[in-house]
Amino acid sequence: MAVGKDTFPIMHPVPGFRLGTGSAGIKKPGKKDLVIMAFDDGATVAATFTKNAFCAAPVKLAKAHLQANTPRYLVTNTGNANAGTGQQGMDDALEVCSALARLGNCAVEQILPFSTGVIGEPLPVGKILDALEATICACTEDGWADAGVGIMTTDTRPKGTSKQIDIDGNTVTITGISKGAGMIKPNMATMLAYVATDAAVEKGLLQSLLSQATEQSFNRITVDGDTSTNDALTLVATGKSGATITTGNAEQFYQALESVLVELAQAIIRDGEGATKFVTVKVEGGGSREECLKVAYAVAESPLVKTALFASDPNWGRILAAIGRAGVVDLNVDKIAVWLDDLLIAEKGARATTYTEQAGQAVMNQEEIQIRIALSRGDHAETLWTTDFSHGYVTINAEYRT
Amino acid sequence: MAVGKDTFPIMHPVPGFRLGTGSAGIKKPGKKDLVIMAFDDGATVAATFTKNAFCAAPVKLAKAHLQANTPRYLVTNTGNANAGTGQQGMDDALEVCSALARLGNCAVEQILPFSTGVIGEPLPVGKILDALEATICACTEDGWADAGVGIMTTDTRPKGTSKQIDIDGNTVTITGISKGAGMIKPNMATMLAYVATDAAVEKGLLQSLLSQATEQSFNRITVDGDTSTNDALTLVATGKSGATITTGNAEQFYQALESVLVELAQAIIRDGEGATKFVTVKVEGGGSREECLKVAYAVAESPLVKTALFASDPNWGRILAAIGRAGVVDLNVDKIAVWLDDLLIAEKGARATTYTEQAGQAVMNQEEIQIRIALSRGDHAETLWTTDFSHGYVTINAEYRT
Repeated sequence: MAVGKDTFPIMHPVPGFRLGTGSAGIKKPGKKDLVIMAFDDGATVAATFTKNAFCAAPVKLAKAHLQANTPRYLVTNTGNANAGTGQQGMDDALEVCSALARLGNCAVEQILPFSTGVIGEPLPVGKILDALEATICACTEDGWADAGVGIMTTDTRPKGTSKQIDIDGNTVTITGISKGAGMIKPNMATMLAYVATDAAVEKGLLQSLLSQATEQSFNRITVDGDTSTNDALTLVATGKSGATITTGNAEQFYQALESVLVELAQAIIRDGEGATKFVTVKVEGGGSREECLKVAYAVAESPLVKTALFASDPNWGRILAAIGRAGVVDLNVDKIAVWLDDLLIAEKGARATTYTEQAGQAVMNQEEIQIRIALSRGDHAETLWTTDFSHGYVTINAEYRT
Repeated sequence: MAVGKDTFPIMHPVPGFRLGTGSAGIKKPGKKDLVIMAFDDGATVAATFTKNAFCAAPVKLAKAHLQANTPRYLVTNTGNANAGTGQQGMDDALEVCSALARLGNCAVEQILPFSTGVIGEPLPVGKILDALEATICACTEDGWADAGVGIMTTDTRPKGTSKQIDIDGNTVTITGISKGAGMIKPNMATMLAYVATDAAVEKGLLQSLLSQATEQSFNRITVDGDTSTNDALTLVATGKSGATITTGNAEQFYQALESVLVELAQAIIRDGEGATKFVTVKVEGGGSREECLKVAYAVAESPLVKTALFASDPNWGRILAAIGRAGVVDLNVDKIAVWLDDLLIAEKGARATTYTEQAGQAVMNQEEIQIRIALSRGDHAETLWTTDFSHGYVTINAEYRT
């Protein structure tokens, strides 16, 4: 199941950023499971990685390489996460990087490796090495759509988005792809995203813009509160557009970047296994950003709220109970109001007097729903995106074996 | 579904503590839905209540009454939680207390009210008032088994336990009942427990012993992380045994009290809707109590771990991923070891070399399973009890309507 329309957008190529997709035979024979992304000297790279203490070998290596040198290649295999594999996993990831560095004529630290798939199985290094040369030869600026498929594991559809803006008379492109079924499957470990732009952005600024936009996009989605051992998001700026982004003119670029990341993050939620609803949880009137997020996460991750969403049940009691246990100090429940879209369902600690079950049911029957919560304690607001909790979720996660 | 044997134990009466059970017609006609517990002047009472900010009207009133006076009666209705009912709910709960105070010839503040059932519907006060007299007349020291049934909502079986210990040559009895299907149903709002003893315990000490034992029992169970608007646990000490508990001799009494509370709390987990497993999560070698609990809750509440338990899948990768995101600072994953019962499944960030899938499967096929996690950071240890996450959970919570 997935929520919303299944159309892959027009992907504007990013000058200086090439993608090649191949089949190494890690997944079923003939399936695309190897993606190389290549870019020239002069590009800058920023990335964010999982905060899970059990991070996978490629995540550890990519972090170290990014610290040590300026990347030239990103290499991604699907079908095997190279996670929970100990020292052997580190050696395997390094061997893939070394082979690609020889082919690409660069330093081994200029390769960032990424893996996604089953946890705890040794990486089939030989298969990957055999497929590297054909995949690097396939690299082209028009390779986005194939790469979007190549990075999929249990995704039901590729996820991409592309935007163009004008900066000082130059057309700047931001194009990206993502994969993952929410944090629903750390076994298939899980969320990967790659975004490229032809703006020129100094590395420190690029990382700062990426971190800020990640906070408003990938760090605002939740399926079940579980995080993966392999999550990674990489942003490459090739500088080929002629436009240079500085702290002075970054705002327009930042807005476009944030909207690309939000669309890629939301695409992951829409494709969450078992998902039948796309749910926005907005908390406003908070005394701080933190308390807005506490309330939003308590509601978005409550199994009781999520099963009610699956049942299209306008169960305001469960939403109030989740708000009540969110850990907000001195919460005055009499000042809280809750809406489903524009329908007021609860206020003053009870069902709204104007509320009717019929009106609530009409909103809940929709595929996309907003739960809006006003705390009346201040001016802060935060928004999360999540999905419902269905039999599909239990089936997929009970039947899937490592 | 429920885990373990379905036998109600022998309940030793507690001298000075009487229970009466009646039918007010709040649930289906003829069903037991009203319980009165009565005790004489000189008894001391301690209680703990839900920390949910949205607490129900009877919880607010019971807290205020306990503060103001020494209780003589506890009155519990099932079928209606009187939660999310605003000022009307407070007025309704007070009316029930006033009527019982007149019948019992005591002050209204000497009545503690409890309600459990659907949220957001007005309390049927008239039905309760009509049934009060017959129910108070039914009060007897042998009333525990009936009361155990009378406080049930969607529980599949009554839950009780009873212990006797010898203190200074006096036989001291501790007997209790509980209801609830875990925190699985805040709609049916949810967990109630009543424990009585014939020891004499001064009120301050009684509250202190109850709080400490609650921390090791009811505060160590979790089904889905959701808490209810009506949770309450009450302990009454009648003093009729001749034994007096003081800070000097409290240890033996405390141990018996804690074991009664642990059994009542575990009974709630075993009867969790959809539960097919009873799971103990033990974290040892922690640097502090708090970090042990963080890790234990992360594992016990992970939907991915819980669906794996439902599938009897020895999915060590999901357990490691949950530990990794628990938020423990500077966690060294290479020092962590994980066992299923006595079977080592993971160490040094990977699957244990001695582990076999067959051995893991054998443990997971059991109805009762212990997940033991050694952090190797210090001497602290904590234990939680939880259940799995099944299709039954989704069905019950998706199909149940407020």
